[in-house]
Amino acid sequence: MLPPTSLTRLSERGTSDRVTLDALLDDVMVGTLSTVAEGMPWSVPLFIARDGDRIVLHGSTGGGILRHLVEGAPVTLTVFALDAIVVAHTAFDSSANYRSAVLRGTVTRLEGQEAEDALHVVTERLIPGRTAEVRASTRREYAATVVLALPIEDGMWILKARSGPAGEPDEPTDAWAGIVSLRTVADTPSADEWVDPKTLVPASVEGLRDRYQ
Amino acid sequence: MLPPTSLTRLSERGTSDRVTLDALLDDVMVGTLSTVAEGMPWSVPLFIARDGDRIVLHGSTGGGILRHLVEGAPVTLTVFALDAIVVAHTAFDSSANYRSAVLRGTVTRLEGQEAEDALHVVTERLIPGRTAEVRASTRREYAATVVLALPIEDGMWILKARSGPAGEPDEPTDAWAGIVSLRTVADTPSADEWVDPKTLVPASVEGLRDRYQ
Repeated sequence: MLPPTSLTRLSERGTSDRVTLDALLDDVMVGTLSTVAEGMPWSVPLFIARDGDRIVLHGSTGGGILRHLVEGAPVTLTVFALDAIVVAHTAFDSSANYRSAVLRGTVTRLEGQEAEDALHVVTERLIPGRTAEVRASTRREYAATVVLALPIEDGMWILKARSGPAGEPDEPTDAWAGIVSLRTVADTPSADEWVDPKTLVPASVEGLRDRYQ
Repeated sequence: MLPPTSLTRLSERGTSDRVTLDALLDDVMVGTLSTVAEGMPWSVPLFIARDGDRIVLHGSTGGGILRHLVEGAPVTLTVFALDAIVVAHTAFDSSANYRSAVLRGTVTRLEGQEAEDALHVVTERLIPGRTAEVRASTRREYAATVVLALPIEDGMWILKARSGPAGEPDEPTDAWAGIVSLRTVADTPSADEWVDPKTLVPASVEGLRDRYQ
């Protein structure tokens, strides 16, 4: 069985296609941010939110999680979407349909109004429409949040993908072969106990259900 | 809005619970492997397959993708599962229910019978039961595959998770709040065109549908 990365040699597509990259970045909510800290690899999964030609990351000022990243250290950001399990006629040829990207760069810390604007983008990316349904964030809440931006720059990202059927064998076989597509679905929203039962499920939450169905 | 990592301060659970770690590793198919190459962070998404106290990774010998890792370089392996979107009464408190782990260590390259046995584990982890349905892999196929093992060692991994409701606000609000659970489902298997239509969908593929429903 080959890894996602090597399968691209068989059915590579769109490795320089920015539109496909953006679609992937907008499709996944979480990525892995990695950097080098004291010579060692250091990684953390984080929410990602694409904002045009950059990716907005955020964290708590108290957690210290992102302290390595405000010092201009080079990073990678890795995202992937597993679209299907590819069940080939052999174990070796079995694989996955997937989309993945690894971006490289250096993060910039955003401050003041720029940070607040970026956090709006984050909220709208993760729960579209939610900003209009809740009160504005407070100074204290903004101050508790580190906001970072990773630029999406030409030549600084690799996009890999596999799609399509398992593929025709070059040997006689009576094995079944094909794909099993995977997708993410949302269950019925579950309101917190303290919420007034008469409160309507808001449009943003209905939108999440429509997105994941 | 806080990142997954910082929310654990609010509702942390099982950070030293190996059973929970194993359940997460068995639940996800893909992780991000990161290392340091020439002083820079380097990352790639890969299939993962837990085999007792180690994680088996594999790649193509031809791809060169894993060449940094056979030289004993320290790595991180990051996995996460996004279980629910947490829609709180504010944007700041909104988040996700998730499970994540970052493992550290050094990979060992497996050879010969040990590599072949590990690849069986990989196939059985990704498509349980498939090994018995297809022909054995050939010498040539094994030779084309790099097999690596990352040990799961005490003190070398961090497990973080959030679960439960959005949480009660410390301010008056009439906002809806709650969670939208996400899960992965499998669609109806799609056979390749060259497969004899009379060929039954094998038990391994039916098993995938049972796993993701």
